Amino acid sequence: MNPIKICVLAGDGVGPEITAEALKTLQSVCRTRSIPLDLTEGLIGGCAIDAEGIPLSPATVEKCRMSGAVLLGAVGGPQWDCQPANLRPEAGLLAIRNKLGLFANLRPARVFPALQNASPLKNEIIARGVDLLVVRELTGGIYFGEKGQTEVDGNPSAYDKMLYSEYEVERIAKVAFEAAQKRRGKVTCVDKANVLETSRLWRRVVDRVRERYPEVELNYLYVDNAAMQLLRDPSQFDVLLTENMFGDILSDESAMLAGSIGMLPSASTGHGTLGLYEPIHGSAPDIAGKGIVNPLATILSVAMMLRYSFSLEEEACAVEQAVEESLAFGRTPDLADPAYPAKSTQEIGDFVAARA
Amino acid sequence: MNPIKICVLAGDGVGPEITAEALKTLQSVCRTRSIPLDLTEGLIGGCAIDAEGIPLSPATVEKCRMSGAVLLGAVGGPQWDCQPANLRPEAGLLAIRNKLGLFANLRPARVFPALQNASPLKNEIIARGVDLLVVRELTGGIYFGEKGQTEVDGNPSAYDKMLYSEYEVERIAKVAFEAAQKRRGKVTCVDKANVLETSRLWRRVVDRVRERYPEVELNYLYVDNAAMQLLRDPSQFDVLLTENMFGDILSDESAMLAGSIGMLPSASTGHGTLGLYEPIHGSAPDIAGKGIVNPLATILSVAMMLRYSFSLEEEACAVEQAVEESLAFGRTPDLADPAYPAKSTQEIGDFVAARA
Ligand SMILES: CC(C)[C@H](C(=O)O)[C@@H](O)C(=O)O
Ligand SMILES: CC(C)[C@H](C(=O)O)[C@@H](O)C(=O)O
Repeated sequence: MNPIKICVLAGDGVGPEITAEALKTLQSVCRTRSIPLDLTEGLIGGCAIDAEGIPLSPATVEKCRMSGAVLLGAVGGPQWDCQPANLRPEAGLLAIRNKLGLFANLRPARVFPALQNASPLKNEIIARGVDLLVVRELTGGIYFGEKGQTEVDGNPSAYDKMLYSEYEVERIAKVAFEAAQKRRGKVTCVDKANVLETSRLWRRVVDRVRERYPEVELNYLYVDNAAMQLLRDPSQFDVLLTENMFGDILSDESAMLAGSIGMLPSASTGHGTLGLYEPIHGSAPDIAGKGIVNPLATILSVAMMLRYSFSLEEEACAVEQAVEESLAFGRTPDLADPAYPAKSTQEIGDFVAARA
Repeated sequence: MNPIKICVLAGDGVGPEITAEALKTLQSVCRTRSIPLDLTEGLIGGCAIDAEGIPLSPATVEKCRMSGAVLLGAVGGPQWDCQPANLRPEAGLLAIRNKLGLFANLRPARVFPALQNASPLKNEIIARGVDLLVVRELTGGIYFGEKGQTEVDGNPSAYDKMLYSEYEVERIAKVAFEAAQKRRGKVTCVDKANVLETSRLWRRVVDRVRERYPEVELNYLYVDNAAMQLLRDPSQFDVLLTENMFGDILSDESAMLAGSIGMLPSASTGHGTLGLYEPIHGSAPDIAGKGIVNPLATILSVAMMLRYSFSLEEEACAVEQAVEESLAFGRTPDLADPAYPAKSTQEIGDFVAARA
């Protein structure tokens, strides 16, 4: 078997801690199943700014391109917040997505049965089932459109352009329909077609793509209504398909439904199998280095990596299984519950690595 | 005393039912307190399209301009969904906001103690208190920026431009700080300054405006984080200040926290005292004409109207008090609770009118 080749971008804040724990699990999975593993490391975000003067160097991009998958921790911190926009840690994150052509961001959100109490929603709503997947377009829209400063009638002004081409919508719509085929067969496309021209283009293209997936159910929802429905009854959703900015907002809202954002992984993929995997939470500088950050979101990101980039389904399931078991073994403070022992980042990481 | 002059735009779907009930309360308040009332009516939305071929005629705009306040029901319905964008009911709503210069949309969201069970949030989260005000910019941003179709590298594309001038941000920021002064003294400005140039302009202007309100606390939150925090702990918020599109999404999310969107009013104001008052829910064509729609959001909009456009604070409080009392008297189906009798739209409307 060829080695699985992974580039690790630990990043800032809690990044190094969570990627270290996730790598333990990955190494354990590979060791017990005799899968050769080839790891390299690269800099991104604030640590790259400090070391190389920019948040993402061509050398890091090249390392990622030569790999089968990228494992990312998190980027950002207050010490870089006063930099101009293009020299901030987040610029590195946006650039790596763009340079690697990772247009599809997959963010599953589900409530683990053991974590019902951690969800802000009433138990009777959760009992109906929360298990949805946000498919977010990641390299287009207002994130990457032209932006700048200007004057309007002598008034200093600024603008950001949301731009989508049919091609961009088509490829992400396919991802959503294909994901729905493997899940519960339902796509909800979220937009603001009563206001935005881009949303109307989305609807035209999505209507066309759906013809190739006659067994998948499709409906449309305005983004304001979607933000409500996610609270009222999340069980109505299977796959949520949406553009970059709406996806940013709705996937974070969905994530919160799960109780702790410390539990949720994400995958960013493109046309091939190269993918970037990261927890959906941020760099949490306030708790960095204390050994209390929840490593499970990053470990679950490794499971997504095994599944999507390396087609190692069984291994992915083993990791997910071990994560579920860890919830009974003990918990980091974000999931604190008097019924379970408090554990450190490392203790949880060791437990999962030993079982996966 | 001069008469208070109100233009009623009942609109579509449940619009005529809810405005009828709200007018009962208004008439009762004016009668018992000898306040002369001068009512006119106008068409907006789908009914205007059917009668006049456009969703908002100059005649309706003129009637509104000649009034002290506008009471709006709701617009829209499936029969007008295939029209081109500028001939849809929503275009009437966007146009009236714009023509009357109503740049400030105020959307209070609170959980009525009697409705704790209706909120999707766990009781222990609600117990900390949910009482926030979304101050949404209403006549700028991506709603009103240039939009259209184009080609990019031979690919059919569409775009929407988000544009803000300092002037627009300054006037809405003032509204937020002034509202906070009368409330709990805290403004949270929600944006996406790590990505958007317009958000960075917002921060510059808001920082400047805050200097005039040294006793008000100000913090900034990214919109994705705000969508989470609203679920995790809504008690942390007093006034949320944000641009048009983010405000659309976050105010609907906030509204859902309150349990039923049938309870929440809104006010849209500009430089003078002329304001437009409407429930935040839509036209709900599926339940129109059945006598089951909740009239309380529209009745509470009348309270906001009395307070903001006519400075009738005592009368506004009387209406709000009567609404709270009605929750023990009985409820429309959206608030169904076996502990309280089921009542029709009209019965609730009669009850509130008699007490206000
Ligand atoms: C850090 C930020 C630029 C980023 C985004 O908005 O895409 C983050 O919120 C995310 O969702 O990964
Ligand atoms: C109907 C629609 C155009 C409108 C908006 O987005 O402003 C509505 O959602 C609202 O919030 O009043």
